[in-house]
Amino acid sequence: MTVEFWFLIGAALVFWMQAGFAMVETGFTRAKNAGNIIMKNLMDFCIGTVVFSLLGYTIMMGEDTLFGLIGLPNMDMFTHFKEFITSPADGSFTGASTFVFNLVFCATTATIVSGSMAGRTKFSSYCIYSGIISLIVYPIEAHWIWGGGWLSELGFHDYAGSCAIHMVGGIAALIGAIFVGPRLGKYERDEKGNVIKVNAIPGHSITLGALGVFILWLGWYGFNGAAATSVSELASIFMTTTIAPAVATCVTMIFTWIRNGKPDVSMCLNASLAGLVAVTAGTDAFDAIGAAGVGLVSGFLVVWVVEFIDLKLHIDDPVGAVGVHCANGIWGTIAVGLFANPDAPAGLHGLFYTGEFKQLGLQLTGFASVAFYTAVMMTVTFMIIKKTNGLRTSAEDEILGLDISEHGLPSAYPDFMPAVHKYTTYEEYNDASVVLGETPEAEAVTVQKLPSLVDEGRPKLTKIEIICREAKIDKLRNAMSKLGITGMTVSHVMGFGTQKGHPEFYRGVQVETSLTPKVQVDIVVSKVPVRSVVETAKKALYTGHIGDGKIFIYDVENVIKVRTGEEGYEALQDE
Amino acid sequence: MTVEFWFLIGAALVFWMQAGFAMVETGFTRAKNAGNIIMKNLMDFCIGTVVFSLLGYTIMMGEDTLFGLIGLPNMDMFTHFKEFITSPADGSFTGASTFVFNLVFCATTATIVSGSMAGRTKFSSYCIYSGIISLIVYPIEAHWIWGGGWLSELGFHDYAGSCAIHMVGGIAALIGAIFVGPRLGKYERDEKGNVIKVNAIPGHSITLGALGVFILWLGWYGFNGAAATSVSELASIFMTTTIAPAVATCVTMIFTWIRNGKPDVSMCLNASLAGLVAVTAGTDAFDAIGAAGVGLVSGFLVVWVVEFIDLKLHIDDPVGAVGVHCANGIWGTIAVGLFANPDAPAGLHGLFYTGEFKQLGLQLTGFASVAFYTAVMMTVTFMIIKKTNGLRTSAEDEILGLDISEHGLPSAYPDFMPAVHKYTTYEEYNDASVVLGETPEAEAVTVQKLPSLVDEGRPKLTKIEIICREAKIDKLRNAMSKLGITGMTVSHVMGFGTQKGHPEFYRGVQVETSLTPKVQVDIVVSKVPVRSVVETAKKALYTGHIGDGKIFIYDVENVIKVRTGEEGYEALQDE
Amino acid sequence: MTVEFWFLIGAALVFWMQAGFAMVETGFTRAKNAGNIIMKNLMDFCIGTVVFSLLGYTIMMGEDTLFGLIGLPNMDMFTHFKEFITSPADGSFTGASTFVFNLVFCATTATIVSGSMAGRTKFSSYCIYSGIISLIVYPIEAHWIWGGGWLSELGFHDYAGSCAIHMVGGIAALIGAIFVGPRLGKYERDEKGNVIKVNAIPGHSITLGALGVFILWLGWYGFNGAAATSVSELASIFMTTTIAPAVATCVTMIFTWIRNGKPDVSMCLNASLAGLVAVTAGTDAFDAIGAAGVGLVSGFLVVWVVEFIDLKLHIDDPVGAVGVHCANGIWGTIAVGLFANPDAPAGLHGLFYTGEFKQLGLQLTGFASVAFYTAVMMTVTFMIIKKTNGLRTSAEDEILGLDISEHGLPSAYPDFMPAVHKYTTYEEYNDASVVLGETPEAEAVTVQKLPSLVDEGRPKLTKIEIICREAKIDKLRNAMSKLGITGMTVSHVMGFGTQKGHPEFYRGVQVETSLTPKVQVDIVVSKVPVRSVVETAKKALYTGHIGDGKIFIYDVENVIKVRTGEEGYEALQDE
Repeated sequence: MTVEFWFLIGAALVFWMQAGFAMVETGFTRAKNAGNIIMKNLMDFCIGTVVFSLLGYTIMMGEDTLFGLIGLPNMDMFTHFKEFITSPADGSFTGASTFVFNLVFCATTATIVSGSMAGRTKFSSYCIYSGIISLIVYPIEAHWIWGGGWLSELGFHDYAGSCAIHMVGGIAALIGAIFVGPRLGKYERDEKGNVIKVNAIPGHSITLGALGVFILWLGWYGFNGAAATSVSELASIFMTTTIAPAVATCVTMIFTWIRNGKPDVSMCLNASLAGLVAVTAGTDAFDAIGAAGVGLVSGFLVVWVVEFIDLKLHIDDPVGAVGVHCANGIWGTIAVGLFANPDAPAGLHGLFYTGEFKQLGLQLTGFASVAFYTAVMMTVTFMIIKKTNGLRTSAEDEILGLDISEHGLPSAYPDFMPAVHKYTTYEEYNDASVVLGETPEAEAVTVQKLPSLVDEGRPKLTKIEIICREAKIDKLRNAMSKLGITGMTVSHVMGFGTQKGHPEFYRGVQVETSLTPKVQVDIVVSKVPVRSVVETAKKALYTGHIGDGKIFIYDVENVIKVRTGEEGYEALQDE
Repeated sequence: MTVEFWFLIGAALVFWMQAGFAMVETGFTRAKNAGNIIMKNLMDFCIGTVVFSLLGYTIMMGEDTLFGLIGLPNMDMFTHFKEFITSPADGSFTGASTFVFNLVFCATTATIVSGSMAGRTKFSSYCIYSGIISLIVYPIEAHWIWGGGWLSELGFHDYAGSCAIHMVGGIAALIGAIFVGPRLGKYERDEKGNVIKVNAIPGHSITLGALGVFILWLGWYGFNGAAATSVSELASIFMTTTIAPAVATCVTMIFTWIRNGKPDVSMCLNASLAGLVAVTAGTDAFDAIGAAGVGLVSGFLVVWVVEFIDLKLHIDDPVGAVGVHCANGIWGTIAVGLFANPDAPAGLHGLFYTGEFKQLGLQLTGFASVAFYTAVMMTVTFMIIKKTNGLRTSAEDEILGLDISEHGLPSAYPDFMPAVHKYTTYEEYNDASVVLGETPEAEAVTVQKLPSLVDEGRPKLTKIEIICREAKIDKLRNAMSKLGITGMTVSHVMGFGTQKGHPEFYRGVQVETSLTPKVQVDIVVSKVPVRSVVETAKKALYTGHIGDGKIFIYDVENVIKVRTGEEGYEALQDE
Repeated sequence: MTVEFWFLIGAALVFWMQAGFAMVETGFTRAKNAGNIIMKNLMDFCIGTVVFSLLGYTIMMGEDTLFGLIGLPNMDMFTHFKEFITSPADGSFTGASTFVFNLVFCATTATIVSGSMAGRTKFSSYCIYSGIISLIVYPIEAHWIWGGGWLSELGFHDYAGSCAIHMVGGIAALIGAIFVGPRLGKYERDEKGNVIKVNAIPGHSITLGALGVFILWLGWYGFNGAAATSVSELASIFMTTTIAPAVATCVTMIFTWIRNGKPDVSMCLNASLAGLVAVTAGTDAFDAIGAAGVGLVSGFLVVWVVEFIDLKLHIDDPVGAVGVHCANGIWGTIAVGLFANPDAPAGLHGLFYTGEFKQLGLQLTGFASVAFYTAVMMTVTFMIIKKTNGLRTSAEDEILGLDISEHGLPSAYPDFMPAVHKYTTYEEYNDASVVLGETPEAEAVTVQKLPSLVDEGRPKLTKIEIICREAKIDKLRNAMSKLGITGMTVSHVMGFGTQKGHPEFYRGVQVETSLTPKVQVDIVVSKVPVRSVVETAKKALYTGHIGDGKIFIYDVENVIKVRTGEEGYEALQDE
């Protein structure tokens, strides 16, 4: 009886990992999408519960059929409740225990994807994806591995899911990220479409991300340990589940320190997860040295794959889901064939301990077949979603943030002033500000006399104050650069005006959106003609929509550069 | 022995719900009250522990007396410690286990109220309320239900406290919210006092709120499951505790999506809690279908009640405590009489499964008597507190935020720039800025010559820069609107000046408060006379207190509207 | 078997305390160091795991040798894995269970120090310290107390580590804080080095800090309870572990309320931890009254020691680690000798219950010897680190924040605008802005004609807008004060310019640092000569480095003071 109590406590710990994923994914992405990510994490558990109850569970755990490919669906959970909650005479666990346990694992698989597709995926499409993976994709391969299917018959070993959960979730994350495409501003391309620059889009709260990692690590003791049938086995699992991530994190710290000159915080947080993912398949099959070896590789692997995906393949995975779950899920699955110690609870024969290749062959077979199956299923899934409902939000919605555009939430943090961000202008990005209708770029308005530029023998100084959309800063800045203007000051202001947004609701109450976040750019010029600056700014800012902004011009009496003591025109020149 | 270990582990999980309540309530309210809400959540557990030890526990669990109305108080915990911690011969749990278990449940009841009264309640009054509910209000009704009192004798079923905890906490929350009144700015009223507008006051951190929901959900496996006496029962409880909130959340997502056009994040978070609250009474009495049915209703109920309370009754419940705990506590209590399946562990006969009305009648009896009792007790409690200590902080303190006014904490987030908020001027609000003394509204200061308005044949442009209190923005804006000024830019600045605040302490060290948060409003006018703008601003901002602000006037050389290319006067006109 | 399951669940709860420490320490310190603190908390667990596996564990738990001073190191964990994970015939726990359990306790000891040294310690030195304490310092004294060493032989009682963990961690925290010195700006000194002012440096997120406290409290049920061998003992432990912190928190609330006029949030959060620390040694030896007595003293002690350390000793301990862990660790160790009730599970004879002094003597012996040992070891450790690697970052790095300087993380919260802070100029602080090279303070640049100061019979009004480094605000303000300028407005802006920072990487991608955070200070003057203001500002801001800032001068047409209606020169005078 004790063991089944622990089985359920472990399941509760696995549920807790949902909170960990929510925090990691939110913390590592932008504040303007925080509510959306929370919602995805909440809903994939809730939708998953519904569809896994209705069908997924029995596809996974039902009577093995079709030569080990699938479980036979049944409705016993609903029609035979008494039997479902009664302990079988053979001492095995009740249906209810098994259901809860498998449900929380299934939900873990689904939630991995929300991170890699964060910030630009339609919420409705995510819900569809989430239903499909929990209804059918996960249950079938999990049947192969844990439900009595063909892989379990063969002797493939994936104790707690490096392959069944993390690799599958990670492959789905990779395919999803490819189909949905990178976030705007992530990759700058030249006219031929070649990437000329990769931009970092830092997460908005490293502390929440770190909290998520600690939550996941705690949950992992349940994830890896819940199915243990003796304390001796459980203790061994706890030990390997501690050693692998600890070693991986140390390795990543040292590796990034040596390579970049400084130890990288967010990579180390990823490394802890990488070590946990990798040790999962063989958590009962490794000894202390094996766990350390698995973690050692993970610590390098996570850095290489995260960077390779981003810098070489140009696939935008904001939270590192592919590096953590896919790469280390594969590594962990294979590692069982290498590091399994026959003295460990699982008693498997790894190559490095016994010189035998059999288990390694089985692990490669399992990895390859599940990876192939998942890749096919998820490609089809995302392809169909893309063709029908569409995968991606509009560029305008993405720039505004998914909180407001997908959920009508003006901000997840309305009491804090948002920071000014650098944006990158490139084709897709510009698509967000297309000129609608026929408004010409420069209308025929009588040009008024502008103040003369030279006064009393010294160059007149003029301040040009531009109030515009935040998203336009970078375009404006590049344009000013070409004019020879190198310095500007930017700050966040709120525009009160007649420009109203779409009405949004917070808890049933309409939210006033008459305060529009704007950016104020101050430029002081001397010899550069004010008219050129104004016309250039107009071109950079013009979209034809209400809210394009205003430009104010002021006289400046003097300007002093502190470091050199220069005044007037000279003070404005940067070397 | 295993069961009692789980009983204590479950109690620890219920303790963990305190963290969940703290995060939900903080996240769903304003940043300026964050420290205060944290403090209330911390203290209601600590004060509750003291008073529940001294008296509450034995009132609840002591020998039944007065015809099932109350337990007989005793001091065994202090005077017979050895017996208190020794397992009784009959195999029942030790006094110490039972005490810890009941204490954490009691604390849950108390903490529900802090959310509905957030942002305007005196901290001292909250402490008094908190002591009373844990000392006497909760223990008596809990004795009826769980301590061997009359309701338990009758056969009323409330397994883990939809009624005893959540409905009671929710009713207290409702009465507290009524007595303390709405937050300033929540409801705008006309001169007769009728509400003409309901404003949303969004919570300051959806991510912390969401984390709180995940914490609560995890804790709920202990809350609902701790008293299980077999794994079979526990597994069934875990299953219903998962299905009901999952279904409720899906329902709310779909419901808000269809009705508002977008799925609502904070309502879905509330829905998870609503489903958990509702399933609590019959968590051991429902089957999977019953749990789904209960959740289905919860998903609608929470939205309806949250909105009804706010939009129709104009009761200000910042976190939805009434919709979540009161409404769904009642619903869950009654649902046992409808959905109980005789095959579930509790073996009760619900109407829908057996056609029998008996359990339903018992549930209605229990609900009605406990609700009546609670309503009377809490009305008396809040009435007495209001008459003696006062329930509400001053309007000035409320606007400043309870962190600084009640705890001397200048900010819970001092490293982040606060955002500019829209405020609503109405009678109570204005009370916060009463003119003290005899200072006349416009003092007889010699009016200096203002620059002429027309120059060189084109209208002169003038910038008016107003530095003022944040709370005055809306009044200022309305006044400017009447003058025909439609555009202004607002930003947050810090005023360094001689205006000193009351000295506050952080960890024993005096905090410098010479940086005063101010708002800078920039208005550029052309034909509107500058003097009118200045005089209007003076009227809107004047309170007679130090810190009313300053107005600066600058010459503007030109202004250009980007969208139309218009310049000068034309550029300032909004259509 | 049940007990060993609980033993491992308890160990997982102790692991969870790492998250609590991370959140408390991050929340109670500055945002600019958040990533660094997270990293320290993550790495001390990971480094600790490696070194404790290799040597620490067997020094602690190996066969007792050298007259009880040390365990005999062995490699059984690596060389005899099968035996290590097999339950011994005598029913004792497996090696693997014992290892995991002791590892998480060891990591707790190490992590206490990161709080007291937060914000100015070199990360590399922290890693070295962390390795040493886990490798050798903790294992030796833990061997004395728990590993069969001389103190356990004597009868010294420290059930869960008030002494072995918290006092040791707290002493290390104290010595570390002394060696590293206070944060810049914490203490202002006169020319003789005497402290003339103590500044508060508030933590950046009270909500994360509070979440950390709740996490720690939950974890403490595992910390104190994991080693319980019966439910009766465990229930008693849960009870004392609840009562002591609850009482301590109530006491601190009342104490700070009476003394400061308001109940202090962060002190109450500390008080909960203080009560938990103090009850830890005798959690199985106290009854309910004893636990309350221990908590009562803790509630005062934590406030006194936190303030004494800061205000009298001028040791800068940002999170109160010394007050919480050191002071209450000592108190809890001694309290066993006073409050132990022979009826409690431990059956010890405390002075207050039995009149016997023996246990008290043993406790004093244990405290004194472990404190002496720790003080010597940590003094040597920090002294060597200071002499070799150096303990402290450069002042410039400290002012920038350790996130960017130690980890290349531009901000842990890049989406939020940072608030403007008051800085304090004093000698060490000024060291951060040393003039490099030979650049003279005022270069020979032709002074241009400044606008005349008197115009049309009324004093000309001029606005001086200064864009400068945030760190210079206070120096600037003091200088302006001396000129008779009392009012200024400060806001945060971002400077776009040619001034580039060192390239930093986020997840392998270079982060653009062309946006430099700057501060804009606006001063409007009338009779104070503009030239004096400019020259004074130049002196205050000059460092000779790129980025010293610029000063802009504008004409102001008028200024109005709202409260008095005064205009022009009069409006600028503060009484």
